[in-house]
Amino acid sequence: MKEKDSIGVAFLGLGRMGETHLRNVASLSRVKVIAVADSNPQAAERGKAMSGAEVALTDVEKAIEHPAVDAVVIVTPTDTHAGLIEAAAHAGKAVFSEKPIALDLAETTRIVNTVRERKIPVQLGFMRRYDPGYARAKEKIVDGELGRIELFRALSRDTYPPKLEFLLGSGGIFLDLAVHDLDLARFLVGEVEEVHAWGGVLFDEKFSKAHDIDTAVTMLRFVNGALGVLETARHSNWGYDIRTEVAGAVGKVVVEAPQKTPILFAKDFGSRFDHFENFPDRFEAAYRLEMESFFSALLEGRPVSPGPEDALETLRLALAVRKSWQENRPVRISEIGV
Amino acid sequence: MKEKDSIGVAFLGLGRMGETHLRNVASLSRVKVIAVADSNPQAAERGKAMSGAEVALTDVEKAIEHPAVDAVVIVTPTDTHAGLIEAAAHAGKAVFSEKPIALDLAETTRIVNTVRERKIPVQLGFMRRYDPGYARAKEKIVDGELGRIELFRALSRDTYPPKLEFLLGSGGIFLDLAVHDLDLARFLVGEVEEVHAWGGVLFDEKFSKAHDIDTAVTMLRFVNGALGVLETARHSNWGYDIRTEVAGAVGKVVVEAPQKTPILFAKDFGSRFDHFENFPDRFEAAYRLEMESFFSALLEGRPVSPGPEDALETLRLALAVRKSWQENRPVRISEIGV
Amino acid sequence: MKEKDSIGVAFLGLGRMGETHLRNVASLSRVKVIAVADSNPQAAERGKAMSGAEVALTDVEKAIEHPAVDAVVIVTPTDTHAGLIEAAAHAGKAVFSEKPIALDLAETTRIVNTVRERKIPVQLGFMRRYDPGYARAKEKIVDGELGRIELFRALSRDTYPPKLEFLLGSGGIFLDLAVHDLDLARFLVGEVEEVHAWGGVLFDEKFSKAHDIDTAVTMLRFVNGALGVLETARHSNWGYDIRTEVAGAVGKVVVEAPQKTPILFAKDFGSRFDHFENFPDRFEAAYRLEMESFFSALLEGRPVSPGPEDALETLRLALAVRKSWQENRPVRISEIGV
Amino acid sequence: MKEKDSIGVAFLGLGRMGETHLRNVASLSRVKVIAVADSNPQAAERGKAMSGAEVALTDVEKAIEHPAVDAVVIVTPTDTHAGLIEAAAHAGKAVFSEKPIALDLAETTRIVNTVRERKIPVQLGFMRRYDPGYARAKEKIVDGELGRIELFRALSRDTYPPKLEFLLGSGGIFLDLAVHDLDLARFLVGEVEEVHAWGGVLFDEKFSKAHDIDTAVTMLRFVNGALGVLETARHSNWGYDIRTEVAGAVGKVVVEAPQKTPILFAKDFGSRFDHFENFPDRFEAAYRLEMESFFSALLEGRPVSPGPEDALETLRLALAVRKSWQENRPVRISEIGV
Repeated sequence: MKEKDSIGVAFLGLGRMGETHLRNVASLSRVKVIAVADSNPQAAERGKAMSGAEVALTDVEKAIEHPAVDAVVIVTPTDTHAGLIEAAAHAGKAVFSEKPIALDLAETTRIVNTVRERKIPVQLGFMRRYDPGYARAKEKIVDGELGRIELFRALSRDTYPPKLEFLLGSGGIFLDLAVHDLDLARFLVGEVEEVHAWGGVLFDEKFSKAHDIDTAVTMLRFVNGALGVLETARHSNWGYDIRTEVAGAVGKVVVEAPQKTPILFAKDFGSRFDHFENFPDRFEAAYRLEMESFFSALLEGRPVSPGPEDALETLRLALAVRKSWQENRPVRISEIGV
Repeated sequence: MKEKDSIGVAFLGLGRMGETHLRNVASLSRVKVIAVADSNPQAAERGKAMSGAEVALTDVEKAIEHPAVDAVVIVTPTDTHAGLIEAAAHAGKAVFSEKPIALDLAETTRIVNTVRERKIPVQLGFMRRYDPGYARAKEKIVDGELGRIELFRALSRDTYPPKLEFLLGSGGIFLDLAVHDLDLARFLVGEVEEVHAWGGVLFDEKFSKAHDIDTAVTMLRFVNGALGVLETARHSNWGYDIRTEVAGAVGKVVVEAPQKTPILFAKDFGSRFDHFENFPDRFEAAYRLEMESFFSALLEGRPVSPGPEDALETLRLALAVRKSWQENRPVRISEIGV
Repeated sequence: MKEKDSIGVAFLGLGRMGETHLRNVASLSRVKVIAVADSNPQAAERGKAMSGAEVALTDVEKAIEHPAVDAVVIVTPTDTHAGLIEAAAHAGKAVFSEKPIALDLAETTRIVNTVRERKIPVQLGFMRRYDPGYARAKEKIVDGELGRIELFRALSRDTYPPKLEFLLGSGGIFLDLAVHDLDLARFLVGEVEEVHAWGGVLFDEKFSKAHDIDTAVTMLRFVNGALGVLETARHSNWGYDIRTEVAGAVGKVVVEAPQKTPILFAKDFGSRFDHFENFPDRFEAAYRLEMESFFSALLEGRPVSPGPEDALETLRLALAVRKSWQENRPVRISEIGV
Repeated sequence: MKEKDSIGVAFLGLGRMGETHLRNVASLSRVKVIAVADSNPQAAERGKAMSGAEVALTDVEKAIEHPAVDAVVIVTPTDTHAGLIEAAAHAGKAVFSEKPIALDLAETTRIVNTVRERKIPVQLGFMRRYDPGYARAKEKIVDGELGRIELFRALSRDTYPPKLEFLLGSGGIFLDLAVHDLDLARFLVGEVEEVHAWGGVLFDEKFSKAHDIDTAVTMLRFVNGALGVLETARHSNWGYDIRTEVAGAVGKVVVEAPQKTPILFAKDFGSRFDHFENFPDRFEAAYRLEMESFFSALLEGRPVSPGPEDALETLRLALAVRKSWQENRPVRISEIGV
């Protein structure tokens, strides 16, 4: 790739997450939002006003094809990602897409191949990799400051359980929520060889209706011999709770964001601090930084990351975990094929 | 004031702090940077590229007078603030200015009067009031959660000592650095009646050359009976160190930002976390939020804060502290007049 | 049981752990160390000097039978516990014994029955139950402050790997180290129904020689539906690392002891605090409090806890985890019988 | 001094603090409590039972003179300390005494001289010097890890205000409470040259009746050029609040004990941890360690510390601070003479 002076963007999808991303894109220099598109015309108009885009459209394909558009940002519903990435690839436009590419391996593989053939830069929204805590953990691991990795632990608790409607198309707790921890496992420790997951419905029968679970634990055996555990839950009365530990022969990193606000309040023989409410506040910097990284890579002609191959491997891992839960047995990743 | 649809901005001063502010202004919706101005033409051009401004100027007065400009943001050297606020006031433009208005009481009073007569919205850059920690502390105090305030403590340590050239025009440690803690004292506890300060040159003889000091302690006696202490120092080998405590009959708040990054690193029988390096990272959110607040107040026709009267009172307090140090005796604020 | 005025003690075993316990016993009022015994006569004499005991013996049986002895404290090697508890039971003396009773179920069951028949008060040294953190967690759970328990997580890292000689008689990582977390799981959440463990030798081939592992992860499925994970490791370059989390529908407790010493040291853009080195400093209070509780229960005629039935159930659970690792499959606790 | 095999102790004063000290003394090996004495015979008997002493007396002089007594521990009311230290000195017995020796300089000087002439080992109960946090801070300072000291800050808040009766004989807030911070200032930074204190009655008019104050701030100027501040208050709704910071050119130590118990409780979008209630729990280790240090020094023939000269200098400093408050002006320590 070669360097560019500026980048024209088609921004697709103006839901709540879309607005967050759009605000971040609009604040980047040398990046110009050309077109915003959403099937809801009011949402599209709101996006136009927020970003100063030239056009607001309800037809996302048209936005992709706009001649001033170099890159497409996809924040539409999950089941449209694959088609839009494909359309962008055929139009020769770079892509930032929210994860996942798709919920099944065949379609994801097809997109990976398409993108690879056409040499299109595609970055997926595994934003935790850009959180300053996780990024620093990765640096330390790469620099050998932890020594050989021995143990990985990840806890993810959503604050609010999703609606049944969302659940039905989500792929379930492992593809929708644990997938972030599985991506971190690969990012921080390496590829996984075998998994075993147990789960249950502990607080909300809605999950049963969706053939899903609200609480799960998973064991991971990494190719390099390290071992790991995941805890995954779909609600939290104390805020968005994301904790990750990587322990090695020499050192350990604990990535946690204890205090949302830099204040302690003391009263009645104790002190209290406040937690993050949900992903938009906990990962505010990560959302900003992944977008900055995507566009600065495009501007400077560097490769983007994490790309479709990463998304594919993380999906394969999540599918193995889901299969393990469904079949109530340990599953090797090598079992998961197209 | 009435509501507006959008605001045109003249942005004055493109030093390092200026760029931070410009990035924040440029990312606001319904705010359009019309003109950027800096005596250094390259800096002005860089600002134009960053913000998409229409014009880059070296003549700041011309930028103020641009017909599409509704508001002026002033991030120029301290000794130009008063003149530029005055020019903006005469041109009928709203103003956000870095603090201080001026380093002496007479000129500051003159500007306060001008602004008041012309009913111009003017906000000064005491950004700590917009830090989520200090803002939350203020809420708790206002809500009575601390009870009657008894003790105030503020520590401010700059990371790097300023250059001699800067020191000579800075007004000294109390007007340049302690002034932030003095503003917090007024913001969180109330007006001060009497002060006493001691200081010394403990680590850098450069401060002696500037008839200044690098380390100081100050006692405050508030009108409401509360007592306070300040510690102020011009260097820190462990990062930007800002700590504030307000204790009352019922509760206490401690505003501190312990960890820059959400990661702990354990090794050799201990854990380590990293500190903020300096004001741009410690107060990143505060700089963003003060600007958001200024422009959303203008757009919605609400008053801006903190205004020139606050800046005047805080200056008076800082002058009292400096006088106390210079004359080596307690000084009542009422001694400080034009 | 009826109340007593004072208690005479036979103290058996004067290794390092023995000295810690002896110091705690010797400082209790209304408790008098009558006899100390260790196969090493120097150790016995040292114990006599420390405690003011009347006699120092190398014959532990003689110490138990001393007519002034009401209670026996057993801190001898693991393979002697069962025999000594039995001897004390036959002599009608109360017992505090380090865990475990024995490493196999048959012998443990036999002792449990003997003790039950003879109505002897016996307390086992699962000291974590007496740590102020775990005790407070238990209170909160009992009081319903966490709501229905959903997830349990326990990490235990020893600081220094044991010697091969010790390993050979230890019962392995699950019976020797993870057993503390398994006891906590039962104490805090309830009985376990099924387990699955994976392990490996990651840092020290000595464990292979002992047919043991140095690193393990385990999943737990509790009878009440809650799920859990354990991480267990035999060395730590950053100190004794014990962390436990219990999350419920309403609240969560995290039991961790971050700082050994109440001091933070700031330097080079970061702060550092020191960790506990090993169990004697991390659980100093717990060792003291379990002994206080044992003797005050005897003095006041109250039952002691945790008793042999608890030790038996925790052993059964640990045996299930070990079997799961050995046979590389999930194991139900109901499979583990005499 | 020469080494000893064991030490016989007369223990004087069995109030609440006395019981804490007695428990610590009684648990030391090679230390035997011979006599306990308290004007209240029940208290004396309770002390005898706790410690296994040979005699319980109401006549403290008799206890000192007991031929088996080598050392005297004085935990009686403040106004008896000087007389009892003197009696012990004349009897040739070593002394551990709660601070202060006396509340006036003349009497303290007289005792210092007596003790010096008779070469009696005397240690005063400035227990904070033995707290693991303060001891570690001292080590780091001595080792040069902070570089040249620049700033000292100490906050001390009692939990519960004392009774009026106690206040009347206490010497006031500076001699009774701030004195601990003044001793730390000397211990950690060095001698003080000048002080200035302001105070007020902010929450309890009882202090006015005792011609005392409940809240104070103080500035310190050290001989070595460093500066300091104290905050001192007589009540706290959030527990015993003791914080100390020493900052130098290279590093900084913060001594604080944030959590009483190793548990965090998360609920309602925040976490809470509990504070120490008062000095007995916050300084539990310090009380134990100062006593261990006193007796092990006697047993090994080493000097004890802090001795009467330290107590005298700390008293002189506290008197200077009180005078500064009373006369509402800065006071040099050199003004304070017999």
